[in-house]
Amino acid sequence: MRGNGLSAFKRYLPILDWGRDYDRGVFANDMLAAVIVTIMLIPQSLAYALLAGLPAQMGIYASILPIVLYAIFGTSRALAVGPVAVVSLMTAAAVGNVAQQGTPEYVTAAITLAFLSGVFLLGLGLFRLGFLANFLSHPVIAGFITASGIIIATSQLKHILGVKASGHNLLELLVSLFGQIGAINWTTFVIGAAATATLFWVRKGLKPLLTARGVKPRMADIAAKSGPVAVVAITTFIAWAFSLAEHGVRTVGTIPQGLPPLTAPSFSPDLWASLVGSAVLISIIGFVESVSVAQTLAAKKRQRIDPDQELIGLGMANMGGALTGGYPVTGGFSRSVVNFDAGAETPAAGAFTAMGLLMASLFLTPLLYHLPQATLAATIIVAVLSLVDFSILKKTWAYSRADFAAVSVTILATLGLGVEIGVTMGVALSVLIHLYRSSRPHMAVVGQVPGTEHYRNVLRHDVITDDRILTLRVDESLYFANARYLEDRIYDMVAARPKLKHVILMCPAVNEIDMSALESLEAINERLKELGVQFHLSEVKGPVMDRLRRCDFFSHLNGKVFLSQHQAVHTLVAETEAAAAE
Amino acid sequence: MRGNGLSAFKRYLPILDWGRDYDRGVFANDMLAAVIVTIMLIPQSLAYALLAGLPAQMGIYASILPIVLYAIFGTSRALAVGPVAVVSLMTAAAVGNVAQQGTPEYVTAAITLAFLSGVFLLGLGLFRLGFLANFLSHPVIAGFITASGIIIATSQLKHILGVKASGHNLLELLVSLFGQIGAINWTTFVIGAAATATLFWVRKGLKPLLTARGVKPRMADIAAKSGPVAVVAITTFIAWAFSLAEHGVRTVGTIPQGLPPLTAPSFSPDLWASLVGSAVLISIIGFVESVSVAQTLAAKKRQRIDPDQELIGLGMANMGGALTGGYPVTGGFSRSVVNFDAGAETPAAGAFTAMGLLMASLFLTPLLYHLPQATLAATIIVAVLSLVDFSILKKTWAYSRADFAAVSVTILATLGLGVEIGVTMGVALSVLIHLYRSSRPHMAVVGQVPGTEHYRNVLRHDVITDDRILTLRVDESLYFANARYLEDRIYDMVAARPKLKHVILMCPAVNEIDMSALESLEAINERLKELGVQFHLSEVKGPVMDRLRRCDFFSHLNGKVFLSQHQAVHTLVAETEAAAAE
Repeated sequence: MRGNGLSAFKRYLPILDWGRDYDRGVFANDMLAAVIVTIMLIPQSLAYALLAGLPAQMGIYASILPIVLYAIFGTSRALAVGPVAVVSLMTAAAVGNVAQQGTPEYVTAAITLAFLSGVFLLGLGLFRLGFLANFLSHPVIAGFITASGIIIATSQLKHILGVKASGHNLLELLVSLFGQIGAINWTTFVIGAAATATLFWVRKGLKPLLTARGVKPRMADIAAKSGPVAVVAITTFIAWAFSLAEHGVRTVGTIPQGLPPLTAPSFSPDLWASLVGSAVLISIIGFVESVSVAQTLAAKKRQRIDPDQELIGLGMANMGGALTGGYPVTGGFSRSVVNFDAGAETPAAGAFTAMGLLMASLFLTPLLYHLPQATLAATIIVAVLSLVDFSILKKTWAYSRADFAAVSVTILATLGLGVEIGVTMGVALSVLIHLYRSSRPHMAVVGQVPGTEHYRNVLRHDVITDDRILTLRVDESLYFANARYLEDRIYDMVAARPKLKHVILMCPAVNEIDMSALESLEAINERLKELGVQFHLSEVKGPVMDRLRRCDFFSHLNGKVFLSQHQAVHTLVAETEAAAAE
Repeated sequence: MRGNGLSAFKRYLPILDWGRDYDRGVFANDMLAAVIVTIMLIPQSLAYALLAGLPAQMGIYASILPIVLYAIFGTSRALAVGPVAVVSLMTAAAVGNVAQQGTPEYVTAAITLAFLSGVFLLGLGLFRLGFLANFLSHPVIAGFITASGIIIATSQLKHILGVKASGHNLLELLVSLFGQIGAINWTTFVIGAAATATLFWVRKGLKPLLTARGVKPRMADIAAKSGPVAVVAITTFIAWAFSLAEHGVRTVGTIPQGLPPLTAPSFSPDLWASLVGSAVLISIIGFVESVSVAQTLAAKKRQRIDPDQELIGLGMANMGGALTGGYPVTGGFSRSVVNFDAGAETPAAGAFTAMGLLMASLFLTPLLYHLPQATLAATIIVAVLSLVDFSILKKTWAYSRADFAAVSVTILATLGLGVEIGVTMGVALSVLIHLYRSSRPHMAVVGQVPGTEHYRNVLRHDVITDDRILTLRVDESLYFANARYLEDRIYDMVAARPKLKHVILMCPAVNEIDMSALESLEAINERLKELGVQFHLSEVKGPVMDRLRRCDFFSHLNGKVFLSQHQAVHTLVAETEAAAAE
């Protein structure tokens, strides 16, 4: 009992797992990542809060306690929780329905939304409904991440070019950018392009160069990972030294300072009723985004994440955000990638980030006054472009046209219609394709492989058959989607074989027979009985037999059930020949 | 080429098939059936139009051109197309959302709904998508029809009581009716209750009574079927003779005399957007009802119907209805059974019925002025209560809790939330349950049944196993929803068996391996290789092998692929022992 209690405790507190092996090397890596992420998060958090229609500092508040709670309850080693673009937009839409932007009611509604979203996520996690995330197939995730990377990178181009542009999908963004070509600020562009090129080179070229010059791999690695920090420091210095703000280069500017306040969600039933639908939607989209990022990053290091525990982690993060002046958060795409690339090894990196943000918001923010926004955009572009990978298209094209269709639709819909529609369409198409396939199951007429007890497809193997006995192997569970198809196929086959005395349905691949399929089997049994043909089953699985025994199917069955196909054919041939001899 | 053209032509025009052999005997049978069906249809069509909230004559219009078009394009020989109870109820629910009953907009919306439904059905038929109807499982259909029957019967109580009440679900209807208890018109109630009782008695008691008194079964049958017409005639006469309209008994009133009018659907994008979802639901429900009636009747005469061509027939019927003042129609159960029992041999019987209704529309409608609406309500109540059948609950409870859950949710949601939500929830739950099940597939560790070449579950059979070889039989296709689960199970099993040298994945039930599952198999292969365990496959199906050969899986595979499980164990035991002996 004690062991069980401890293991349950550990399941809900993954920190007990990774916390045990924590050492100085891991600490150094986590701390470095935390510094880099902190620097990136300050302006990003402010920007997302403004996108949600909230006071800028709420973006920082939403990054502190949520990160710590996720570090304790979450399972991903690299996921960075906080405000993200899609969730910020959805927050603006949901809260805008119940309150006026700029009022205290608006802030309270956003806090309440975070609370409701947290309750919903926690509920899904405690009821272990994380399996829902499995319906995101690998190709759909790959397509979604690739397309999202392109959209995020494109959305950052405006900062590199020093123009204003907006849009939630690729088309809107490109149209908006092209409209601004005349307004490009060339000083900003030089800073942005140089930062981007430097970051690409640091990522791809610096480590091999240092290694070739005799620097130890570990040192080369740290140098490469410090690249973004160096670029931030250098461009900030340049912007300060040459007063680039006077040349139209937009910098981060003044960041409000202060500790997160203690806040409480509203418990007004009316407000809950108006927000609960949006909270569910935000939770699901946020979870899907978070879990796809977490799964991708975990797979790169052969780690695993537990979707149910992720729900608990994200639920706690959102509830924590609601208590400390935040708004809905989830595992963010770009911040997690930066965290991962910067070398974060455990969720402690997140906790250090939270501390960093707390310190930064109290003491360090004035130093970032001159940080060019183009530099931050360059960091994000370089990070997300590494996730853009179209090889999934080639791979699925060769292996499975259905998967290819799912990934293509996901990419096109995400690029053309936005991330939410894109991922929804990808999932829906995967599920539909799966259902369509199982509604037209593969069926094979089988015969005996000479000299063995094996029965294989007559079209693929040289096998022995008997024109009085038809054996049909159904290669799928029988359920509502394919029950009618089975009936049709059997009637057609029986009509074409006048000498037929026995039909054997060989069921080694039938894992389930639902009520609809049971009714179809009863109909087939009746029809064959009228035609003077016996209907048998062979190789029925244990669980399926158990279920069939619960109803009166066997009392009506106009034939037998055989443990093995060989036994079935053996018995029926003998019976048929005995009958013929009489 | 010419032959192909002709055969394609014949496929889309089944009339060319049966029309060729038409002779005087068939004509006489068809004509007799048409007379009986016409007599039955007149009151029924009026009643269903009122149920849909439409002017009574639209029920007749909806029975004329649609019947003729179905006769040309449909494949069932006995199906009678026209307004039916469930579709009329769904029409009322859909159109009631966009327009006020009694307005011209309401009528236009109903006509537009028929048009959209026709376009959708035709599209499904031309693209051969009839399989979509299979996603309505038998229990969901049974539950939906039962719940709809209860709602329809309850909705007609207001006519029996002579009060006004409304609502699209049971609760709304009951609340509305109870609120009107003080307003009951007792004259109406007497007429309505007497008509209901008489119709029940005619349906259940008349035929046995007549047969017992020596009347021939065929005549007794015709007498029983004429019951509704007699009740209509008698109550109409009473209402006229005693001027019951002056006592508050609502009658059908003036029905315009004449040919069905030419009408056109609205092409307003807003109206289309509001109706398209309902049109899809109505089409699918109508198609499923129609096709199951058609298949039942076809089976009785060893005929077959083609579901995709049925879609075309019903699509044309609905578009025809939209052009001639009708509303959504489908193949009705009771009218088709009457048509079949009355001896209809070809779809020409339907055309003759259409002519009969045309005559009625031209000449008989003035006679129906005094027909009490309570009588029509009684007709509907008696007809739909035969659809109410709760035995599906008992049957599914015994057989499968998943099906029981689906049917319970369908019934409760239909009663409590209305027809559209009810059927949608039933279908969604069926699909979710199916997906959930296949995401946690049944897997069995198997061993050799002594003295045979068969391998069965170690938990269910007394089998021979070897602690160096683990054979896992997966009883499901491998795809995105269960790929991760498979990985987890294999890693757990391998971790618990230190002596293990070989893992065999036995695949007789694996009908598909999608891209996600392929990536999981590659991951399993890599992981086992690191652990010094070989990974083998056995009994892989032909189509699955074909697909795996298309990618480089086999070049990485750290083991072999065996045709049979027996061969796998035989080979691996020999290899392992040879290695141990060295």
